[in-house]
Parts: sequence; structure tokens; C-alpha cells
Amino acid sequence: MAATASNKRVILKRYVTGLLSEDDMEVVTTEVPPLAVVPAGSEAVVVKNLYVSCDPYMRNRMTRHEVPSYVSDFIPGEVLANFGVMRVISSGHPDFKAGDLVWGITGWEEYTVINNPESLFRINHPKLPLSYYTGMPGLTAYAGFFEVSKPKKGEYVFISAASGAVGQIVGQLAKIIGCYVVGSAGSDEKVSLLKTKFGFNDAFNYKKEPDLEAALRRYFPEGIDIYFENVGGETLDAVLPNMRLGGRIAACGMISQYNLERPEGVKNLFYIVTKRLRMEGFLVFDFYDRYYQFEDEMARYLKEGKVAYVEDVVEGLDAAPAALIKLFTGRNVGKQLVAIARE
Amino acid sequence: MAATASNKRVILKRYVTGLLSEDDMEVVTTEVPPLAVVPAGSEAVVVKNLYVSCDPYMRNRMTRHEVPSYVSDFIPGEVLANFGVMRVISSGHPDFKAGDLVWGITGWEEYTVINNPESLFRINHPKLPLSYYTGMPGLTAYAGFFEVSKPKKGEYVFISAASGAVGQIVGQLAKIIGCYVVGSAGSDEKVSLLKTKFGFNDAFNYKKEPDLEAALRRYFPEGIDIYFENVGGETLDAVLPNMRLGGRIAACGMISQYNLERPEGVKNLFYIVTKRLRMEGFLVFDFYDRYYQFEDEMARYLKEGKVAYVEDVVEGLDAAPAALIKLFTGRNVGKQLVAIARE
Repeated sequence: MAATASNKRVILKRYVTGLLSEDDMEVVTTEVPPLAVVPAGSEAVVVKNLYVSCDPYMRNRMTRHEVPSYVSDFIPGEVLANFGVMRVISSGHPDFKAGDLVWGITGWEEYTVINNPESLFRINHPKLPLSYYTGMPGLTAYAGFFEVSKPKKGEYVFISAASGAVGQIVGQLAKIIGCYVVGSAGSDEKVSLLKTKFGFNDAFNYKKEPDLEAALRRYFPEGIDIYFENVGGETLDAVLPNMRLGGRIAACGMISQYNLERPEGVKNLFYIVTKRLRMEGFLVFDFYDRYYQFEDEMARYLKEGKVAYVEDVVEGLDAAPAALIKLFTGRNVGKQLVAIARE
Repeated sequence: MAATASNKRVILKRYVTGLLSEDDMEVVTTEVPPLAVVPAGSEAVVVKNLYVSCDPYMRNRMTRHEVPSYVSDFIPGEVLANFGVMRVISSGHPDFKAGDLVWGITGWEEYTVINNPESLFRINHPKLPLSYYTGMPGLTAYAGFFEVSKPKKGEYVFISAASGAVGQIVGQLAKIIGCYVVGSAGSDEKVSLLKTKFGFNDAFNYKKEPDLEAALRRYFPEGIDIYFENVGGETLDAVLPNMRLGGRIAACGMISQYNLERPEGVKNLFYIVTKRLRMEGFLVFDFYDRYYQFEDEMARYLKEGKVAYVEDVVEGLDAAPAALIKLFTGRNVGKQLVAIARE
């Protein structure tokens, strides 16, 4: 048995200010202890990483926060981490054994030692594409839409960044329960995907709309009941006057703001009072207890063809930094992920 | 019987842009039909106005809205209207008779013909100061605090414009149920009122705090569970980073913004996501069904001395325009109202 193993990984090179660039990350190879055995007495699990997810919130973790944020900051010199799909190589934990397929938080590297295996979820539908288990967009969409927005049949739903990992699922769930759904995206290709593959009632390219508020008035002459917020900033400002009385804004993310030194100011908040709106933020971590219910329901939709899922997969860790950056330039189409190893 | 009666009234002179000024209103006297009888067949009620309320939302009604707002715009040349306390002079409606004391929406004038008397509420505790029935701040505070904020004993509550009509009641209700309450106001006199008369745990003069975010961190080292929002703009921006996970923002009003041509931008909305905040607007009109429950409860608190109420009363309609403007310069101390006739 080799005394050490080789492990390729993506590290944060320095804290990031402004626009994320490839120079902020580095792909390195390190030697690590042998992976096939877990030290005696440890309950750790060693995993081989198959897929890792690229998610906008990672940008936030690359900034140093004086006041701690909701997730810990990445540390320069250390490996990046996010949700991934993994196969267990060796286990000191009674719930896992070599060969198991799991998903959860892991490193952006070939192999990771997971010291808190209680955080891992089993993959109960391994016949679905394994990559579909990469990360939380499905549960994020499911929990955010049903638990936060509290939709009713026939309501008008607007989704920004609608072809993204979360948006595409929210839109299809909204269609399943009988809502009227319009999405915005940043290219004609994405708009076409929304209208054909995902079955949205309508969709538009926000880059071609000089007056977003007027565009929304056109797409929603009756107003918007539910806005699924993924972008923030001026999109939110355009949405607020178009909301209906008692509307709900599920605040999932505000990707337009993450690379700005100073966020854009949102000016139309007074509509929250006059239209009695509820704007509520949520994080998928709060809904882990719903996970297995979600998994079963979504697996059924996927098998029945009621939900389609579009991914944008890059191959290998060397391509990972650029893949993450694509999220912020909008060049990904669908859920962005990295295939580290295909089995 | 006189052929006509004289009726002094405050009319809107022109639509208002920017800062409200006395020139935007005019006090006129008109001749009206005799008041002692209601035309045969009419269900109208004629009232003598005793007190009318000055409320910040009236500013919003003085602007012409292309898209209708939640209340109708005032019309140049016509009388202003708002909540008031009135005595019925004559009635064509079976539920009301001459001499009854009522409150509800009325004109800023000596006498008003109320064509929809169903909108009036009876005054069930006439031994309380009648002026306490002027308008909705009490019910606004009660409904906004209990229904929207959903407070729990021991929670940390921050109230802006805390010595105002609504703020003073919210703070005292929060104290009654065992919250820790801090208020901000715009003068040392108001701060002293908050700490002594209203029993807030603490209070500060926001004009003396160059860094409001740091001030809030000082007053709430553990963070804020509930923010009762009366002012908007930069105060909201300072509050957001100080909110605790799962905090609630009851959006009652945003008075700092009403006189601005362009509202200030609020930059820290991303905390709504990361701290899973709920920000919810409400209008008192949605809580009318709670009114009589509120009236009984509040009457008890007032009689038991558990709630104090500070009013800023000006005498006569000639003083009404200036009284309304005081709200926006912060020169009122407590609930601003106009005594039209004292009985």
C-alpha cells in the first residue's frame, strides 16, 4: 500500500473583492495519507468525489467577513467546499460502508475525509442520473416555493434567473400545481429553453428590455402574486410596483449583487407597505427535514417526465474555477456542475 | 332654519411634489345645505367633526398616482379626509341617531355628510379622552405588532419613530408581554419621553448617532428579533445587519421617504436571505375585524395605567396644515391631531 496518495484540489488563493476571477483560485496537487483505511477509533468517512456543484453563494464565502456570515468563510490556501455526489471508499461510521453513494458537503478535490458523516445523505434513487444529486437546488426550489411562497392554483408567478439550477425547478413545480409562470433569463437560448423544455407560459430576455418594470407590466397585466427572487437589485425594484396585493417574495438569492463592492440600492420598498407584501428569505439548510419527502416526490416527477432538468457540466477540477465564474457572467445554461470522476 | 350653513374646511390646493408645504393646502369657508336634516330617503349621516388625525400616509394621497395606490388620491379643490372623532347631528341610517359619538373617516372640516355610515365605528368607552379615538394608530400598533411581528416574551424589539402615534403603543405593548424594547426618535425630549413615560428599556436620538448601524449594535449586542419599521431608507439599511436569524420586520410606514422625489436605495437587503428574515407590510384596514377586541383590551390598559398615550393637539382647522407638516419635520411630540371643536 502506498505511503501517501495524490489529491488534486481547488484552493482559494486570496480573499476576493469585486468580480471573481480565475486568479483568485488555484488548482494544486497534494500528497495525502492513504485513503483506503480510516484511522482506528475515528468515525470519519473517506469519499471519492464524483460531482461537485457550482453555486452563487460560494462567492460570498470568498470574502472575509468581520461579522460571521451564515456559512463560514473560505480560507486562503485551503480547499473550496460545496455540495457534491460521492462514493464512500472507507468508513469508520456504522451507517456507511465502502461503495455507498452519498451526497452532501465535500471538498473541491478528488478525495475528501468527511469528519462529520451525519451530514451526509444517502442516494435512494441511484437509477436517476447521479449528477442530479449535486447540491441543493431541487430542495431549495421545493422548499422555497411551497413553504415560503405558499402558492395557490391560478396564481401569477415570476422567476428571475429562471433557467438556473433553482429557477427551472421552481417554474416546473409552479406549472404542476396550476400557476401561470413567466421567467426571465439573460439569453435567447435560455428563453427558448424556458418556453419549450420547461413549459413556462412565457419568458423573456431581460437584456433586451430597456424598461424592466414596463416589461413586467406587459407580461403580467394582472400583476404578480409570487416573485421567486434569485437576482436582487434593479430586478427587485422593477418587480415591486408590479406585485399584487398580498403578494409574496421568496428571497432565495441576489446574484446580481455578489460581485459588487457596494450593492445597488432598492428604491421601491414602500410597496411592501402599500401592497401588504411579504418578503421572506430562506436557506435550504432550514429544510433538511423535508429532504426525503422531496426526494421521493421529485424522483417520481422525473421518472414520469413531468420535470425536466438541464445541467451544464464541465469535466475535471482544472475546469472548475472557470465554471464557477460562468455563474456570474450568465454563460452557464442550466445547473452548473463539475464532473470530477465519471464511474 | 337657515337656508344654508357655513362650513370651514381644509382643501388640497394642488398636487404635491417634494416637501409638503402650507401653500399646498388652503383653509376656506363654504356654504352648505342645512345640516340638521338628512334628505328623505337618504341613509347618510351628518356629523360634527370634533377631532381629526394627522397621519403620514396623507402625504402619499397628495401626489397624483398614474397607477392607483392603496387609497384614492386627494383631488385639488376638494376637502382633505382622514380618521376623526365625530358627533352625529342627524341621521338617515337606522344604526345611528343624533347625539351618537362615532369615529371613522371624515373630512377636514366642521361638518361632513357621511354617505356610507357602515364605515363608522361606535365609541364604546366615552369616558376615555375622546381624542384617543382619533384614527387608527392604536389598532395599527396592535395588529402590526401581534399579527405581523408575532412576538415572543424575551425578544428584542426595535422601534423607529418610537414616540410617534404608533411607535409609543407598540413599545408599551411589547413591554407588557415581556420584550426588551429600544426606540429611536429625533430629539432628546422624545428620547426622555420614551424612557420615562413609556417605560422603554432604552432609547436614543438618531440625529446624534453618526453611525446608526454601530449604534444599533451597541443597543442590541444580541441583535434584533423584531423591527417595527416606521421610517425606511437608511434606518432600514442600518437595521438589516443587526437583525437576528429568523427576525421579523413589520413594515408599517417609511416616513423618511414620503417627501423625496427619488427614494433612498436600501442596500443591505441580502441579509433577508442570509438571516432568513421576514419583512411584511400591512395596513390597518386589513384588521378592522379585530377592532372591538382591540378597543376593549386597550381601554383596560389605559384605565389600569399600563399604557400611557401622548398627544400633540393643535386647536382649530386654521392650524391643521401646519400640524400635518410637523409630522415630516419631526416637530410633533406624540400623536398629532387637530381639535376642530371641543364639547
